[in-house]
Amino acid sequence: MATLWRDNWLYVSRTEAFQKPGAFRVLSIGNQNYLVVRSRQGNLRGFHNTCRHRGSLLCDKKEGQLGQTGRIVCPYHQWTYDSEDGTLLRTSSFAEPEDFRRSSYRLFRVAVAEWQGCVFLHPDPNATWNVDTLFQRPTDNFGNFPLQSMRIGHRWRTEMACNWKTFWENFNECLHCPAVHPELTHLVPLYSRRIVDPTDVPDWADHTERKDPRYRGGLRDGAETWSIDGSAQGHVIPSLTAEDLARGQTYASTWPSLFVAGYADHVRLCSVRPLAPERTELVAEWLFSPETLEDPGYDRTNVVDFAVRVMEQDARVCELNQRGLHAVPLESGVLMPEEYLVKRFQDWVRTGVQG
Amino acid sequence: MATLWRDNWLYVSRTEAFQKPGAFRVLSIGNQNYLVVRSRQGNLRGFHNTCRHRGSLLCDKKEGQLGQTGRIVCPYHQWTYDSEDGTLLRTSSFAEPEDFRRSSYRLFRVAVAEWQGCVFLHPDPNATWNVDTLFQRPTDNFGNFPLQSMRIGHRWRTEMACNWKTFWENFNECLHCPAVHPELTHLVPLYSRRIVDPTDVPDWADHTERKDPRYRGGLRDGAETWSIDGSAQGHVIPSLTAEDLARGQTYASTWPSLFVAGYADHVRLCSVRPLAPERTELVAEWLFSPETLEDPGYDRTNVVDFAVRVMEQDARVCELNQRGLHAVPLESGVLMPEEYLVKRFQDWVRTGVQG
Amino acid sequence: MATLWRDNWLYVSRTEAFQKPGAFRVLSIGNQNYLVVRSRQGNLRGFHNTCRHRGSLLCDKKEGQLGQTGRIVCPYHQWTYDSEDGTLLRTSSFAEPEDFRRSSYRLFRVAVAEWQGCVFLHPDPNATWNVDTLFQRPTDNFGNFPLQSMRIGHRWRTEMACNWKTFWENFNECLHCPAVHPELTHLVPLYSRRIVDPTDVPDWADHTERKDPRYRGGLRDGAETWSIDGSAQGHVIPSLTAEDLARGQTYASTWPSLFVAGYADHVRLCSVRPLAPERTELVAEWLFSPETLEDPGYDRTNVVDFAVRVMEQDARVCELNQRGLHAVPLESGVLMPEEYLVKRFQDWVRTGVQG
Repeated sequence: MATLWRDNWLYVSRTEAFQKPGAFRVLSIGNQNYLVVRSRQGNLRGFHNTCRHRGSLLCDKKEGQLGQTGRIVCPYHQWTYDSEDGTLLRTSSFAEPEDFRRSSYRLFRVAVAEWQGCVFLHPDPNATWNVDTLFQRPTDNFGNFPLQSMRIGHRWRTEMACNWKTFWENFNECLHCPAVHPELTHLVPLYSRRIVDPTDVPDWADHTERKDPRYRGGLRDGAETWSIDGSAQGHVIPSLTAEDLARGQTYASTWPSLFVAGYADHVRLCSVRPLAPERTELVAEWLFSPETLEDPGYDRTNVVDFAVRVMEQDARVCELNQRGLHAVPLESGVLMPEEYLVKRFQDWVRTGVQG
Repeated sequence: MATLWRDNWLYVSRTEAFQKPGAFRVLSIGNQNYLVVRSRQGNLRGFHNTCRHRGSLLCDKKEGQLGQTGRIVCPYHQWTYDSEDGTLLRTSSFAEPEDFRRSSYRLFRVAVAEWQGCVFLHPDPNATWNVDTLFQRPTDNFGNFPLQSMRIGHRWRTEMACNWKTFWENFNECLHCPAVHPELTHLVPLYSRRIVDPTDVPDWADHTERKDPRYRGGLRDGAETWSIDGSAQGHVIPSLTAEDLARGQTYASTWPSLFVAGYADHVRLCSVRPLAPERTELVAEWLFSPETLEDPGYDRTNVVDFAVRVMEQDARVCELNQRGLHAVPLESGVLMPEEYLVKRFQDWVRTGVQG
Repeated sequence: MATLWRDNWLYVSRTEAFQKPGAFRVLSIGNQNYLVVRSRQGNLRGFHNTCRHRGSLLCDKKEGQLGQTGRIVCPYHQWTYDSEDGTLLRTSSFAEPEDFRRSSYRLFRVAVAEWQGCVFLHPDPNATWNVDTLFQRPTDNFGNFPLQSMRIGHRWRTEMACNWKTFWENFNECLHCPAVHPELTHLVPLYSRRIVDPTDVPDWADHTERKDPRYRGGLRDGAETWSIDGSAQGHVIPSLTAEDLARGQTYASTWPSLFVAGYADHVRLCSVRPLAPERTELVAEWLFSPETLEDPGYDRTNVVDFAVRVMEQDARVCELNQRGLHAVPLESGVLMPEEYLVKRFQDWVRTGVQG
């Protein structure tokens, strides 16, 4: 917590939450509160959500709009800050002490950056933004997704009685899929082999010619997207190539806070936030193209319900995993070949460096 | 907690709670439980609410009446103590061990004292009672209030998600008044200037001739008391002088547990008790003269509702303040000229000595 | 907790919970989870309820039946273990690493043993089972109870806001009986003298000829069992002798988890489990002979309601005791002559050795 969530870029929300100057969102990570705001100059800026006067929270709501001045005004004593750089513009006192220098009481800044319509912050205001190292693997596969212009069509939130690391360990392997996710395994036949990539097994080269999705990956024949009936309802994203569609699903993770999942007709952002050592918030946002959102004939519940079912199944086993971890004789677990991504995650947790 | 709430006089309740011998009240401070009782001899006595036998709680209710004997009888094994001095009068055993000396098993005493019908206890049984240092400032201004004979007409309780010190810091300044307490600021025009005393500003001498309550202090013209409509409903306390009435409100605080607020027709006692590091109980008691209480035409909700609104506004900003205090880069806040009483409070917290 | 609940035999449940191979029960002690199962070979076996792979809980329910294979299959990744000895039979991976030895990943075993239809486990798999030292006193008095063949007729559970030790201290003395248990003291007149054995007082020899149950012990004249009306409803256990019946009640305790109470027509098992430092689970199971259970004319509520009342009274004073223990000046309590069993318990807590 004290290092990994303070030394990495953390997903905040989509840029669309910050359309007008003064739009803000608050991100809570444990007991830390961050404020991201669209400044009067139109820039995205981030600060600790704490007044420099007596330490009050500045913005009490999870999201909202600053007042007409576009300045950040503490609701307690009305200290007023510039939303562009956190400068203390005015206090509310009849006079300021002689040795009081407003420049010593700027808001504590945090770094903010954007990737494809996704806003991230870094608690270190001097952090370097490098999109090449933001994700665990290159995001080339997202090249044809119009991520920037997609919009949120649904949002879902749950809490899990597990540590946030347990969530990521679960996310990074599919050994559990057949038993935990029957519907998903039906949709992605490769998962019935408990692997996430056709080349995960030593004899993969023997099967390169097979068209069976159990071997080539991708969705089951006839299915287009992660949805209850497999259908994309005529809303396949036009810019996707045949290769993208054959892949069926496209993933990218940025630890510790977000993974992005791309499908034929939508993208799902799945973010986690630690609330307590064994309490984690999970939020999913479904992105669609504006055309899809505007089509009254497109039924979003088809994709939403499918992913909610999968995420609830994952939440259940994460909680199960967490409860068993307290056994006194258990010093550590053991990883199997399919769990190479879990190993990579554990190495990152230990070293802070991505393998 | 371990020092300030063990090394100061703590408000318990009004004396009227102890009318008959055997009447008791329990005061809980964190996990400490104190018992204050009117002894058979008619004295107010205080003890740890813990039996010397196996440590059971002696009195389970917050308030009540000892049994007919007027003795303190442990509900667990009936060890019986004198309510006057805590002497162990009898055990329930067929015989006591040879080396058992009842005098070694008196109740743990705490000191008890009274001021104007208010009962205080001090966890140190040998604490010195000095009414001159009990309050932060001399209580001369209460000289014309018939505090001793006033009676509780209403009681209100809430819990705040903040540390008890956050409550006191908030109480000790009015920088927050205009934005947080619009109704109160309307009633007390001086508060629109964010100060608590006309002399708080350097140029106060320039305004000594002004009758505007924004400068002279006191309530707005036409208002008599802290009430919804400003009216005292014909129940101005007769002993109050013109000066008392012009002042409009009179305060005295005794840290860490109580402030007393006097108005034209009533007095309000406001006490806090820490329940946990970020959980504090707030209790208000409204005192009226017996004549006022007996007048069916006097509507107490007029004063009660006004103060409840103010206290709820304070509770909300105290919670806001508390939540922002966890920001990692925040080492300390800064105090402004109007916050000299906050400074005095912080100095007292640090040193235990009143400035 | 870390020693006493890890270094003693702990009551799990009655054997009847394990009738068929594959039947299992989970025992939770604080954050430790144990699994006891009837193996395919028909033996009772115990394990930490934790998978050796990534530490998931193996069985999520409190009791149940393993799948048809009779093997223990982790619900997360389907690692499969032999229920007889915890051997890892299979993983779910396409291949196991070269240096992976299944024998290194057996389930963590715990010891299991039976006494008269009661199943116990010991967290140390090599613990020695010795029925002579299992109970605090010899269980000879239970010799005529058909414990093995009795069956559960009712089960009751509550939680107490106290430490588990407070429960045992309360159980081990009857100084509290007259005030806390009026109905029980009426049933067992000896308890009105606050003692548990006629010989507990120095002058006991003077009263050996007296038939008054206040002196000889046993139930009040006309009462047969611990029930609301004192009646055994014609179901006195046939194997009990006149001496057993005259005794009226028969007890045996095995610290820290169980006491057994025998009466003319039933046996009650009362077990405790720590949930948290000041949270304890209390479970009572009433055992009857099959004949009694099958008699539609026998009303179990007669015995159940009586004991529930007594246990609720005990729970209340245990909570009272716990709340008083935090008093700062209280370094320790003091024990009276009647509390020799409490002393024995405290000595055991301190030393781990039974006196």
